[in-house]
Amino acid sequence: MSEYRTALIVGAGSGLSASLARLFSKNAMQVALAARTTDKLASLAAETGAKVFACDATQRAEVEKLFAQMDGSLGAPDVVVYNASFRTRGPLADLEPADVEKAMAVSAFGGFLVAREAARRMLPQGRGAILFTGASASVKGYAQSAPFAMGKFALRGLAQSIARELGPRGIHIAHFVIDGGIRSARRLVSPDKPDALLDPDAIAQSYLHVLQQPRSAWTFELELRPWVESF
Amino acid sequence: MSEYRTALIVGAGSGLSASLARLFSKNAMQVALAARTTDKLASLAAETGAKVFACDATQRAEVEKLFAQMDGSLGAPDVVVYNASFRTRGPLADLEPADVEKAMAVSAFGGFLVAREAARRMLPQGRGAILFTGASASVKGYAQSAPFAMGKFALRGLAQSIARELGPRGIHIAHFVIDGGIRSARRLVSPDKPDALLDPDAIAQSYLHVLQQPRSAWTFELELRPWVESF
Amino acid sequence: MSEYRTALIVGAGSGLSASLARLFSKNAMQVALAARTTDKLASLAAETGAKVFACDATQRAEVEKLFAQMDGSLGAPDVVVYNASFRTRGPLADLEPADVEKAMAVSAFGGFLVAREAARRMLPQGRGAILFTGASASVKGYAQSAPFAMGKFALRGLAQSIARELGPRGIHIAHFVIDGGIRSARRLVSPDKPDALLDPDAIAQSYLHVLQQPRSAWTFELELRPWVESF
Amino acid sequence: MSEYRTALIVGAGSGLSASLARLFSKNAMQVALAARTTDKLASLAAETGAKVFACDATQRAEVEKLFAQMDGSLGAPDVVVYNASFRTRGPLADLEPADVEKAMAVSAFGGFLVAREAARRMLPQGRGAILFTGASASVKGYAQSAPFAMGKFALRGLAQSIARELGPRGIHIAHFVIDGGIRSARRLVSPDKPDALLDPDAIAQSYLHVLQQPRSAWTFELELRPWVESF
Repeated sequence: MSEYRTALIVGAGSGLSASLARLFSKNAMQVALAARTTDKLASLAAETGAKVFACDATQRAEVEKLFAQMDGSLGAPDVVVYNASFRTRGPLADLEPADVEKAMAVSAFGGFLVAREAARRMLPQGRGAILFTGASASVKGYAQSAPFAMGKFALRGLAQSIARELGPRGIHIAHFVIDGGIRSARRLVSPDKPDALLDPDAIAQSYLHVLQQPRSAWTFELELRPWVESF
Repeated sequence: MSEYRTALIVGAGSGLSASLARLFSKNAMQVALAARTTDKLASLAAETGAKVFACDATQRAEVEKLFAQMDGSLGAPDVVVYNASFRTRGPLADLEPADVEKAMAVSAFGGFLVAREAARRMLPQGRGAILFTGASASVKGYAQSAPFAMGKFALRGLAQSIARELGPRGIHIAHFVIDGGIRSARRLVSPDKPDALLDPDAIAQSYLHVLQQPRSAWTFELELRPWVESF
Repeated sequence: MSEYRTALIVGAGSGLSASLARLFSKNAMQVALAARTTDKLASLAAETGAKVFACDATQRAEVEKLFAQMDGSLGAPDVVVYNASFRTRGPLADLEPADVEKAMAVSAFGGFLVAREAARRMLPQGRGAILFTGASASVKGYAQSAPFAMGKFALRGLAQSIARELGPRGIHIAHFVIDGGIRSARRLVSPDKPDALLDPDAIAQSYLHVLQQPRSAWTFELELRPWVESF
Repeated sequence: MSEYRTALIVGAGSGLSASLARLFSKNAMQVALAARTTDKLASLAAETGAKVFACDATQRAEVEKLFAQMDGSLGAPDVVVYNASFRTRGPLADLEPADVEKAMAVSAFGGFLVAREAARRMLPQGRGAILFTGASASVKGYAQSAPFAMGKFALRGLAQSIARELGPRGIHIAHFVIDGGIRSARRLVSPDKPDALLDPDAIAQSYLHVLQQPRSAWTFELELRPWVESF
């Protein structure tokens, strides 16, 4: 059980976000889900009792509105998880600049906007947690994947910087390096390679564990990968 | 609750080892404690039901004997924690070579000997976990602390190497970067800096969490530091 | 002496860029200088025989025009150095989103645009070099400096990604971690701390060395810091 | 041209050491070669005017004698390069403990002994350089290569630690990550993969460059790899 009460998950359309919503809800947290498009979140919201907000996290005004709506309904979140990301691949020479801008905006700039609003509310309380979902690309720039590397490296730079600023003010910042593919309805594990994709419920357990850490022994960065993943 | 049943803690004289023994015991694991000198382990053994073994982990014959004794009593451990370390400080020009050898032997070579015996028993089962306790010095060589850096860097190299070998064989290898001082009877937190030292019970909770991870989402490396620690 | 002939320096207004222009020119390279505002580049251009181009590196059309102008005058560069960066500081809660966007655009997105145009011209030749100027903030996110960390981390992600793609195609990508302050007219070394700021001419020598490396022994990343800098 | 005058190369039997000896000699440095067995060093000594010393770098008394002999002949070296290493491979369960001890002794402990004697002589002068040769295994522990990882990680920990101690006293410490195979008479580049092995002469040029850096812009760590090497 965590001492936190209200969790906002941004980028709520992913399978990991669904696992987090369920686990947080089971652990007595009130959950809020934010996503650019919310039409697919109805059943998850029903299942978890979550409140749903439409928000394009790359737009300052929308992020400010999201937090204002939280203030006026569930109250400011004491846990925020930033899961949004956008990736595109290809040889450098063929990449579309607009896609690169979008990758940086969704994967990193939105994380900044969300963390800023969260920090403004957590700082006066001297407590709270902001969790960022990274990837293999957070620590290694793969060939033909520059946009994702740029976004995820930037997000990690943000997380490190604000961990150093906000940690001593009581706000727990953590960055998860998800080093492998995540299992989903579209991406099934092959029977001859059991557990070769990360189970999103298992990832969620590690997020919850980090939320439960007392402040004398906080984790900033934690890698998660399948047993058979090369690294 | 972890699926593991028998945990061997090497370097059992430390406060972290005591916290681990208590927590593992509470989670239904049979605990074995190994240390070079065992006279101070009696009360912990009584409290946790642990079996105690004398073992200088830097000596091949003693490590082999330790595991043979385990084989003949509790059975081979499915969890091994390597906590032993030795440090000495000083300007490079003044360091005693014998101290440097000892730092490398206790902090790293002993870890190899213990992991080797553990792996020999875990590999046929296709399961098990070997956890290594690192320090700030595992990832940063501090001035006037070359011996500790040499030992802890080497231990991390060992852990990475065997994680890549043994992970895909079902054995979970994890390395913990304990980045701060650990609270103890001799090292108390000052009242004006609450929680500025790592609570060994809190560290132990993160070790247990790693043991509970399903193999689709294993952590290899995890940092733990007090909220106010600079990094 | 390098085998390269034509060097384009983007972000040409800095002291490091001036040192590079002088050194490249002395080493028989034709130099081109690109900067958003070019009015202060006249004397450097006169001294080094450099051609000067106005270019806002964050604007796709301007970067494409810059390279088209190069094509039509000096020819496509076989060396490109990306030096542009923008930073702003402050507590997370007080940062202006527009400043963060600018930091990411100037420090990283512009690097992508420039590298893309450069690669398009270097790939058919199977040779060339693209050098990126990083900072302490490329590898460590400092408190109250999130925007710079976001930009510089992203630039490093870009550099790593394209090093893996373009290296095996004959294009040398290198990333320099400038870990300290650079001496300038505005930032003088204090007499009691000699050489405590990086001499831009000394940095430039390391850039030239990297350009001179044969392809069997290329450096991707290299740190440069003053002897007294803590790290 | 470097300002240094006398270079001691320990582990002088390798191809890289030979390239260093030739390059240093051409750059007006007096060279000393130390190796456990010296019988194969005669022609290199003749070619470079180097003085040859027999020394097992893992033995304290022999290292002290080596430096005493230098004191009494060429004078204390102002450059020391530590090139010695020993590796053995294999599954963890099959590794011989004696081989692991040797890997740590040759690759790391010897580096400590040599650096200690070097520092004792350089500190009173407030100048000098100690260069360490690392490998891919310095920063990544590969499967089935634990002993080499342990030795090379430890050497890097030593180098970092003493860089932080000795840099501000005027002694330049540098660590080279040689990330690939080195070309040699026994290890030839295949014609269809040109320059796929590091040319030791090219590596030596980067060592010399680091020696030539003024103290305002020192490199601590530098990677070198062939253009086609994956990383």
